[in-house]
Amino acid sequence: MTAYDDLMAYDHDTQALAQIAGRLGWDQETVMPRGAAPQRAEEMAALESVLHARRTDPRVGDWLAALDGVSLDPVAAANVREITRSYERASKVPAKLAATLARVTSAAQGKWADARAGDDYAAFAPVLSEVIDLKREEGAALAAGGDVYDAMLADYEPGTTAADLQGMFGALRPALSELRTAILEQPKPQGVTGAFDEAAQLKLSALLAQTFGYNTDHGRIDKAVHPFSSGSGLDVRITTRTNLHDPFNCFYSTIHEVGHACYEQNIDTDYLLTPLGQGVSMGVHESQSRIYENQIGRSRAFTGWLFGQMRDAFGDFGIDSEEAFCAAVNRVSNGYIRTEADEVQYNLHVLLRFDLERALMAGDLQVGDLEAAWNDRFEADFGYKVDKASNGVLQDVHWSVGLFGYFPTYSLGNVYAGCLHDALRSAVPDLDAQLSVGDTSAATGWLQQNLQRHGGLYEPREVIERASGQVPGPEPLLAYLRAKFSDIYAL
Amino acid sequence: MTAYDDLMAYDHDTQALAQIAGRLGWDQETVMPRGAAPQRAEEMAALESVLHARRTDPRVGDWLAALDGVSLDPVAAANVREITRSYERASKVPAKLAATLARVTSAAQGKWADARAGDDYAAFAPVLSEVIDLKREEGAALAAGGDVYDAMLADYEPGTTAADLQGMFGALRPALSELRTAILEQPKPQGVTGAFDEAAQLKLSALLAQTFGYNTDHGRIDKAVHPFSSGSGLDVRITTRTNLHDPFNCFYSTIHEVGHACYEQNIDTDYLLTPLGQGVSMGVHESQSRIYENQIGRSRAFTGWLFGQMRDAFGDFGIDSEEAFCAAVNRVSNGYIRTEADEVQYNLHVLLRFDLERALMAGDLQVGDLEAAWNDRFEADFGYKVDKASNGVLQDVHWSVGLFGYFPTYSLGNVYAGCLHDALRSAVPDLDAQLSVGDTSAATGWLQQNLQRHGGLYEPREVIERASGQVPGPEPLLAYLRAKFSDIYAL
Repeated sequence: MTAYDDLMAYDHDTQALAQIAGRLGWDQETVMPRGAAPQRAEEMAALESVLHARRTDPRVGDWLAALDGVSLDPVAAANVREITRSYERASKVPAKLAATLARVTSAAQGKWADARAGDDYAAFAPVLSEVIDLKREEGAALAAGGDVYDAMLADYEPGTTAADLQGMFGALRPALSELRTAILEQPKPQGVTGAFDEAAQLKLSALLAQTFGYNTDHGRIDKAVHPFSSGSGLDVRITTRTNLHDPFNCFYSTIHEVGHACYEQNIDTDYLLTPLGQGVSMGVHESQSRIYENQIGRSRAFTGWLFGQMRDAFGDFGIDSEEAFCAAVNRVSNGYIRTEADEVQYNLHVLLRFDLERALMAGDLQVGDLEAAWNDRFEADFGYKVDKASNGVLQDVHWSVGLFGYFPTYSLGNVYAGCLHDALRSAVPDLDAQLSVGDTSAATGWLQQNLQRHGGLYEPREVIERASGQVPGPEPLLAYLRAKFSDIYAL
Repeated sequence: MTAYDDLMAYDHDTQALAQIAGRLGWDQETVMPRGAAPQRAEEMAALESVLHARRTDPRVGDWLAALDGVSLDPVAAANVREITRSYERASKVPAKLAATLARVTSAAQGKWADARAGDDYAAFAPVLSEVIDLKREEGAALAAGGDVYDAMLADYEPGTTAADLQGMFGALRPALSELRTAILEQPKPQGVTGAFDEAAQLKLSALLAQTFGYNTDHGRIDKAVHPFSSGSGLDVRITTRTNLHDPFNCFYSTIHEVGHACYEQNIDTDYLLTPLGQGVSMGVHESQSRIYENQIGRSRAFTGWLFGQMRDAFGDFGIDSEEAFCAAVNRVSNGYIRTEADEVQYNLHVLLRFDLERALMAGDLQVGDLEAAWNDRFEADFGYKVDKASNGVLQDVHWSVGLFGYFPTYSLGNVYAGCLHDALRSAVPDLDAQLSVGDTSAATGWLQQNLQRHGGLYEPREVIERASGQVPGPEPLLAYLRAKFSDIYAL
């Protein structure tokens, strides 16, 4: 078994170096001095170059060839599967193209930020064209004759194709539209009013993280402009943010990131610094952040407990019952911005992007026509016009940095969360009684046991099927949303 | 000139990766979650292994061979000098020995901490023996037939031998002893009393950092158990600490680390991520931290300004004149701990360690006899007995982690600081008038211009000679100490 042992010993250091790259990303977003950016770019480039050389090292190819056809136990087979994927992915893309992409997207991100600040799509279009051309070239190299968009998707969600997604999303869109319309015809629930001390928000946010099982012996919570979770294994850090008048922004950002972080923290420690020691895909990751945030964190039962915590922390804040509080937390209202969207409308924002980016990649939509296409589609889906580019086509960073095939994993995660929630409710019939006293342990324990601990052992769809006991589809999510919002809005 | 260009392009990434290793060290001491330590050890080992492979890469040897005898401009020659040093250093030590040393010293540090907590030298002695045996083996490999201790010293202070140091230190020890005795016969000046709000300490500490020219666009200040400076170029971070009853601990720790950090920040940006883009030696580094801290920061003129700042920040704290304040800042009193020692006694602590570690390495002193030898020497130098091992032979971490040849660079730095201070006073005759209003710019500007900006361009002794205009020796330091403390203590 020498080839496998050698491969794993070599890969161990690659994994460790990849964790370092992640830590530098955390550093950059939280504590790095402003003026350090140019040096940091050099440091990251040097580390990425080491990682690329390791991932494509001919010895890796030799070890994998020696293991071809060898019978392996499930863990070893999964390790070999993941290393093969990484080796082939890194080997297929010419080093020069990878370097050009890194340089162009790094510059494009800055140009996107400037264009967004100036609400000027035309200023961004040329560099977006350049990114798309390069991504198409990369996609063609990865697809090796297959579908280019599917090859891109495989970077984030191996095993899922655009056709799979179209199947799910095709059912989602009209159903969500219908639910949305019904809700918006009802009176709007009361929101929170006044100012919420930011230190007190962070204190309650830390309590929420603890309540959901986040382990600060192996993590930490800092403030950052964009909330995120970073790292795997024994060092998984999250960030959150505060808004003086909107404490839910802080609380639900924290719970969302805690969902991502707990997935990483709860993976079997046997997999530490192996290919299995991290979440298996973006979609499965998002299923954990969303089920923590929404199905658990925004449930009537849990918000009842949170209402009490908020009264203790902030006194009277204009809402006087658990029911009204739950409605405020789950308020559906019009808005332009995906990241601020409620549970009902969120996926409509994602589906818009999924359709547009496939059209861009297929050449059916030209970059010059993208803003108009966005605005038309937005009006069709939401019934009102986009007022400015920063509220429309320029709102997300993703395309500027070359993330194509990434957006749909958000909605896929929501679909997965719906399936998992179904199974969780069956497995833990008295879940609401527990959540109503702030006890999430049965819910998070079930997710750990049935999904999180496996890390990369099973392919994404397989781990969802094993945990949920069903072939993933949109119905559980839709049924959950219909039931929940019918209740809140008396539909 | 292809060999040189290739060498420098390759070395650029090595430098960048070394900066990453430094950043991980900062992370570990300031923000890393407690439970992340085992994973971090793996990450650091993987990165060190990459660095070692790069430093000993046969291509580096080939490029250096191709450049042998080639005429180079001074910057290129210095780069080649530094890369040669690093290549030979890394190539001489067998990889297996380097790995064993890393593992043993890592474990030894933990055993030292336990032994110190239990005041139990006997528990530490066996592992110290092991460390010394390995360091002797490494030293023999580095020395290649030359003096083993000199080879160790060259890791921290290339170009200086134990014989050089003995020459300087031989003059220092009796002179400092004599000054110490004279001072301790005088009445002890008043100290500060009461509690000093720690947030206010940190605020004034930040003002002091700014006053000495520390640039927080390229750095940051955090709290840590042990103050340190970390990083080079555009990202140079420092830490400080607070003690409720001793604000000077915070202020002078900060100024000391700012001295180290400004040296790094003020190096010519042309040298960024090259071998010249960092302080040239530990001794020269310490000269900067000590001249900032002592010759400038503890001067009568500067403490006059600081007295006003402290009154503004803390109100009345038991001292009512600038003279009394300067005496409090510079109070000489008995103590066991090197890091808490005043300017007069500090070097006596270092010289004790220098003599003992040379005897250990030469085999003239056995590890089993080290505690007794320490205690005897301490009593001879200070006139009172060590009360427990944590106040004696177990107080410093250095030997446990294999730092032999490191202690003397502290005193060498003080000697260098004395020489530089001499030249600075000649160059800026009205320095005290500036310092008395909190303006350090002429002093720090002179150091930047004459020393700091050169980074690794000149060898350590050469840069001190160029800046100070004299061959480094202990007399300027002694003359400065005698004058200053004669004044404070009315000798």
